[in-house]
Amino acid sequence: MPTFEEVGERALVGMIRGIVAREGCPDGLDDDAAVLPMPSGDVVVCTDSLTFDRHMPEGMTYEQFGWMCGAANVSDLASMGARPTGLLASMNVPVSMDVADICDIMSGIDQCAEFAGTYVVGGDTKPGNGTVAVTAIGSMEGRRPMTRSGARTGDVIAVTGPLGGPAAGFHAVANGIELKESVDCLMEPIPRVEEGIALAESGLVTSCMDLSDGLSTCVNTLCRASRVGAIIEWDLLPMEEGVRVINKTLGISEKDMVMDWGGEYELLFTFDRRDIDAMTDTGVDFHIIGLVTDNDCLLHRDEKYEVIGDGRY
Amino acid sequence: MPTFEEVGERALVGMIRGIVAREGCPDGLDDDAAVLPMPSGDVVVCTDSLTFDRHMPEGMTYEQFGWMCGAANVSDLASMGARPTGLLASMNVPVSMDVADICDIMSGIDQCAEFAGTYVVGGDTKPGNGTVAVTAIGSMEGRRPMTRSGARTGDVIAVTGPLGGPAAGFHAVANGIELKESVDCLMEPIPRVEEGIALAESGLVTSCMDLSDGLSTCVNTLCRASRVGAIIEWDLLPMEEGVRVINKTLGISEKDMVMDWGGEYELLFTFDRRDIDAMTDTGVDFHIIGLVTDNDCLLHRDEKYEVIGDGRY
Repeated sequence: MPTFEEVGERALVGMIRGIVAREGCPDGLDDDAAVLPMPSGDVVVCTDSLTFDRHMPEGMTYEQFGWMCGAANVSDLASMGARPTGLLASMNVPVSMDVADICDIMSGIDQCAEFAGTYVVGGDTKPGNGTVAVTAIGSMEGRRPMTRSGARTGDVIAVTGPLGGPAAGFHAVANGIELKESVDCLMEPIPRVEEGIALAESGLVTSCMDLSDGLSTCVNTLCRASRVGAIIEWDLLPMEEGVRVINKTLGISEKDMVMDWGGEYELLFTFDRRDIDAMTDTGVDFHIIGLVTDNDCLLHRDEKYEVIGDGRY
Repeated sequence: MPTFEEVGERALVGMIRGIVAREGCPDGLDDDAAVLPMPSGDVVVCTDSLTFDRHMPEGMTYEQFGWMCGAANVSDLASMGARPTGLLASMNVPVSMDVADICDIMSGIDQCAEFAGTYVVGGDTKPGNGTVAVTAIGSMEGRRPMTRSGARTGDVIAVTGPLGGPAAGFHAVANGIELKESVDCLMEPIPRVEEGIALAESGLVTSCMDLSDGLSTCVNTLCRASRVGAIIEWDLLPMEEGVRVINKTLGISEKDMVMDWGGEYELLFTFDRRDIDAMTDTGVDFHIIGLVTDNDCLLHRDEKYEVIGDGRY
């Protein structure tokens, strides 16, 4: 058999899905989080691990890394509309690491738990190479979980906030450009907990996921899960302010930053276009960025349509 | 500040506990698993990570390693009396690793999930150094969770089955001795899911934990959590059959194998001595091994008493 490197992450995850999807397995392998069939209600769980070498950009503190480990998971719960009820942290860190730095990671995770209205309720710490796996557990509290698979042709596509901040922040740090808000998007992203809960509570959302893999990849993923296509309107995309600064200063393409990067923590969701007023009434800030179609996933820009390829994540 | 290596795992975990134990944090940081305050019932969660270099003894297949990753967590649920309702698997494995081997790990985790009556409901797979963090979620289904802190002076101390099998199995493999049952204890341990559920269901148990850290360490841990002492009767300890074979063949001490090793998957629990008949009626196999006292943790052997030090784990 080939190696992990040869087949790539996506193909491997597909194979693994095939192994674990035994009859009776609850849905959720295709979503950001899984809904467990508990006797007492809807419990939602997800896990995501981050490593020092791949997920700690230049300039990030250990505390920020911890926050990020928490945020990645809390965001997955948010995309289902679950309220976080506990985080678990499994840390594998080098034995040579300073205890103060290890405690900083845990403090960052705990601050994220506190932001999300919950606690770190358990975990383990062992010698290893710098991997932190956080698990988040949440409760639907009677709401129907939002999944990736319900988008229908004619729905509008929306996001909860401006995009491109993490990419702009990355380029700012790398080039010594002062762009505090963009850098904050990269280092201390805010998972959309209350927004996710309000969206699920509204009952209007037909599909939802977070944008941690970047807009291009996520539009493709959501459309694949829903068996639909999309047209994304470039002129409607809300951009984090640093994107234009970086574009002007360094010449890096706006599309690259806004669509093809990951690490975004806004939610991507769809709903019936007749529900725009009702959606406005939920109080959740949102920006309509396109329409669900029954064709390919296309970007409409400068009067041209181009197929949206997957981004880097 | 000193390094992880300098302060050691136990001290570090204590510091981390101090960071995350904010007011309102649910109990469970001292137990095998945590009980979440969910609106809809008692959800129990735990996580444990295993690494290729520290937790894969000679002769273990990747499938067995996967089983072990699942079993370590399922056993933590069992010690609370929870029924498993889902596993999550976060795998960080080398990019050079054969995909068949990665799939074998997941297959092992999935087989353990199936044994425990549940499913792998999510996870992630990323490049890394060989760390697998599994999270297990369970439901109390109305039972009161068993914790480590309720043992009372005068209670009897019991275990669900013979001890020393994993140690005997390890020495058997290392020395080319044929001891299939002991080797199975090491490579494919059986978490005591139904036993844990039945014990919690009985309402008789005053404290419980699994023996993954070995009997010596666990007796100390349980007694510390309950603020009691113990006398363990050497002659009452049930020994896995391979222990005597290894002792006779290689001269390795029985006490070392039975008390000071880890990787045991039996449950250690306490209950009121007046409830022995009622406990027998539960149908759970158990062996009384000692008594809870209000003194130190002592081993009674050959008419002498010695303080039980922590084992290797």
